[in-house]
Amino acid sequence: MRPAKGSFQEKLHTIIYEADTKAGKFFDQALLAAIAGSLIVVMLDTVESVHKPYGDLLFGLEWFFTILFTIEYIGRIVAVTQPRKYIFSFYGIVDLLSIVPTYISIFLPGSQYLMSVRALRLIRIFRVLKLTRYLGEAAELRKALRMSRPKITVFLVVVLTVTIINGTLMYLIEGPDNGFTSIPKAIYWAIVTLTTVGYGDISPQTPLGQIIASLIMILGYGIIAIPTGIVTSELAKMQQKTPINTQACPICSLEGHADDARFCKFCGGEL
Amino acid sequence: MRPAKGSFQEKLHTIIYEADTKAGKFFDQALLAAIAGSLIVVMLDTVESVHKPYGDLLFGLEWFFTILFTIEYIGRIVAVTQPRKYIFSFYGIVDLLSIVPTYISIFLPGSQYLMSVRALRLIRIFRVLKLTRYLGEAAELRKALRMSRPKITVFLVVVLTVTIINGTLMYLIEGPDNGFTSIPKAIYWAIVTLTTVGYGDISPQTPLGQIIASLIMILGYGIIAIPTGIVTSELAKMQQKTPINTQACPICSLEGHADDARFCKFCGGEL
Amino acid sequence: MRPAKGSFQEKLHTIIYEADTKAGKFFDQALLAAIAGSLIVVMLDTVESVHKPYGDLLFGLEWFFTILFTIEYIGRIVAVTQPRKYIFSFYGIVDLLSIVPTYISIFLPGSQYLMSVRALRLIRIFRVLKLTRYLGEAAELRKALRMSRPKITVFLVVVLTVTIINGTLMYLIEGPDNGFTSIPKAIYWAIVTLTTVGYGDISPQTPLGQIIASLIMILGYGIIAIPTGIVTSELAKMQQKTPINTQACPICSLEGHADDARFCKFCGGEL
Amino acid sequence: MRPAKGSFQEKLHTIIYEADTKAGKFFDQALLAAIAGSLIVVMLDTVESVHKPYGDLLFGLEWFFTILFTIEYIGRIVAVTQPRKYIFSFYGIVDLLSIVPTYISIFLPGSQYLMSVRALRLIRIFRVLKLTRYLGEAAELRKALRMSRPKITVFLVVVLTVTIINGTLMYLIEGPDNGFTSIPKAIYWAIVTLTTVGYGDISPQTPLGQIIASLIMILGYGIIAIPTGIVTSELAKMQQKTPINTQACPICSLEGHADDARFCKFCGGEL
Repeated sequence: MRPAKGSFQEKLHTIIYEADTKAGKFFDQALLAAIAGSLIVVMLDTVESVHKPYGDLLFGLEWFFTILFTIEYIGRIVAVTQPRKYIFSFYGIVDLLSIVPTYISIFLPGSQYLMSVRALRLIRIFRVLKLTRYLGEAAELRKALRMSRPKITVFLVVVLTVTIINGTLMYLIEGPDNGFTSIPKAIYWAIVTLTTVGYGDISPQTPLGQIIASLIMILGYGIIAIPTGIVTSELAKMQQKTPINTQACPICSLEGHADDARFCKFCGGEL
Repeated sequence: MRPAKGSFQEKLHTIIYEADTKAGKFFDQALLAAIAGSLIVVMLDTVESVHKPYGDLLFGLEWFFTILFTIEYIGRIVAVTQPRKYIFSFYGIVDLLSIVPTYISIFLPGSQYLMSVRALRLIRIFRVLKLTRYLGEAAELRKALRMSRPKITVFLVVVLTVTIINGTLMYLIEGPDNGFTSIPKAIYWAIVTLTTVGYGDISPQTPLGQIIASLIMILGYGIIAIPTGIVTSELAKMQQKTPINTQACPICSLEGHADDARFCKFCGGEL
Repeated sequence: MRPAKGSFQEKLHTIIYEADTKAGKFFDQALLAAIAGSLIVVMLDTVESVHKPYGDLLFGLEWFFTILFTIEYIGRIVAVTQPRKYIFSFYGIVDLLSIVPTYISIFLPGSQYLMSVRALRLIRIFRVLKLTRYLGEAAELRKALRMSRPKITVFLVVVLTVTIINGTLMYLIEGPDNGFTSIPKAIYWAIVTLTTVGYGDISPQTPLGQIIASLIMILGYGIIAIPTGIVTSELAKMQQKTPINTQACPICSLEGHADDARFCKFCGGEL
Repeated sequence: MRPAKGSFQEKLHTIIYEADTKAGKFFDQALLAAIAGSLIVVMLDTVESVHKPYGDLLFGLEWFFTILFTIEYIGRIVAVTQPRKYIFSFYGIVDLLSIVPTYISIFLPGSQYLMSVRALRLIRIFRVLKLTRYLGEAAELRKALRMSRPKITVFLVVVLTVTIINGTLMYLIEGPDNGFTSIPKAIYWAIVTLTTVGYGDISPQTPLGQIIASLIMILGYGIIAIPTGIVTSELAKMQQKTPINTQACPICSLEGHADDARFCKFCGGEL
């Protein structure tokens, strides 16, 4: 059921949920700026050298943004005829989670809770997820990724198996004295190495360990070709399909003919 | 020779080796869970802070899983009419290796052997390889990799040559004082650098060494394009072949029809 | 309005702006060498062990190149009939910025300003941007990048969101004691990890932190496939379009002929 | 002029230069093993813990391999009718350079020269380049790389410009106190970061420096897509051309017809 035409609810809906009117576009841009602003406030508050002199200002800004987002949240509920659908949608939950922590911090005073409350407030950062709402271009990418999911899964299982076996091997070869204190830590090292991140906090010291590490590196350097190849060929396939889909058979109206086809491949009618 | 229909052996075979019945599917899922569980037990046992308080529990769980896998192993042998084929297959050997180490630890008591026995037990980790059995999607990927093997070999030989020559050069330029204590170690450094892992445990200190290191980095950054290009074009070629089958029109004998074509696209004749 | 034929201005224009005569080609090559030379002078001047003994020589060379580029700049203005267009073009501004800092250093003497003046002089490094002027091959690459810009934007927003959320999570898990002193610093770490750079100046120490770090690494290792896939399929699409032109057979009006086709491949009619 | 049939020279030529007879194949395999063996000897000789006990044995093996390669070198000269062509070819020079250093070490005795002589001997490592001779599969790869050379050049110039400008910026922002002691060193850091190697021997400490570093990392992470895209589309283009080249027109004998062509696109003759 759509809201009645010309009603307050309908106008609000156009402003908040749609972006094709002037007011709607302005609302979306202002919201994006407010999200970015509140994120910067949360981040800066954790920097010691900024928190000390500007702590009170940041506290005030934090409450300003929270109240702003609360009004927006109420507005979103009012603007739709079926509020439940919004409240229990992904964005509805994210919107709620991004304002609740600040209110909780009132009822939990006392210096000992301050840190944990500040931690809860950090969940507001999920507000940034809203950003994806404004990008419709992601559809083609998402489709290509969905198509390549089974192959990506196989790839990830292979990567996992390789890291577990190699991590165990390295734990046996290098041992706790060279930083490989346990198998889980050695597997962590194997992931750091295979993905070519290479922190250097743990690195092999024995000749045999360095030989195995070299093999993992070359493997990691080479198998990055696999996810890349999968996604690329999937994207290329999608683009090749597009030029095929233009012609429709005048007899059976089915599509999907190749560019150089002269007869419909489904009914045999001339194209 | 397939086992007689309705016999105990045939039922066991269906449960253990096949996954299309309800019982078979449940067996496979339970086995996967057990493998994951035993892996976690082996791993946690090497973490000092977990081993101390829960060592006895983990020891018990270790024996529980070993007996479980022993029953499974016997079941697999009983369920097939030609047990030799299974025993000497890749999975048969892996299944055996994953239970034997725990039993060996009984006959080799004494504190001094404990560590090495624990090491043998770690071979059980190969049980994880069983995981790949459950993934049939890997076929296309494996074919693309097999097709691109000769080019990948050429690439690996080039990478090896580059790292050997560069490692030797860096040993001469940087010398043992800057961490390049021997040519094998310098080659290890060259692999760490070329694959863009970059631990930082060894890094060039002299200006000339840093110039050569920069060249290796840019080379390594660039030539990752080669395995990626090879696998991608191989995957793309396979996908192009799949939809276009080998059907030839019975009238004009022309080929190149799509999988879903019912009529020849050149002469309109029924396929 | 083009300069009069045979005039001094016309000759100067041919030498400075064009590269198809012998003199013009020589001018371009000499200019490239001068740019490279002045860059090396600026760079070496910051190396302490070179600055001390050769400081005066480098100072002289610095002025030599500045006067050379000043003459070139005046020449470029004189050689065109509409100097404003050149002066306010991208290259005009870069050319001016690359000579101004050296002159400013005269009017700002005194030991306390020396460092900041030297800093201003470094802007001359932008002269290197001129290099791109000499490469016309970049057009196809630039087009492929422009075509893939919307998808790349989506990709970058996803990367940004992932790093912000993960950075915040890691700040909460690891805390200031393990080097994650603030959320911005934790986000910096997340970028270092996701892009597989991995300095190792900050690295997770807690088990939970290492698990999350492993997930970011595998994500970063995998999603590099996305920009690669986008650019590759865009480049491949462009190459497929080029050889097959828009020619239609005048007899059967079918399209899809190769560039070198002289007869229609479907009906044999002359194109 | 080919050597006379049945002569000693002709037989030697078949063994040394060709690999299609049994003796020729055995010679090539033995040579490869000898190259690998001599490389391992040279490498192990630089490892202190191996050199001390086995120094004399390695010295003997070094001379054994040198004499072997000298005989091979003379054999190669004798086996061809125009020895000059071989001597001044790339492989001829490499073959000579790989044996000369050992002989020079006789005429330059004395403990103080030992190290430098050992260094000269290391040039023997270039013998490994011979390996590429045995791999004919590299042709397609090399062609794809040659085709993509102009675009790769543009890419490398862009990378160079980015690293120079960013290196200079970071030198100004971070300064010598944070490890960025000179512009060349800062450029080295920029290359380490852009190529995602990330040693961590130099890393930004100031907030502004970390922001710029983050931008370079994301840039480096993204633009790796460009060389990959170039090589991939070039390889894919080559594979697409292959199926086209089979048919030859029976009238004008020109090739290059598409798979579905019924008439020659050059002369109009039926295929």
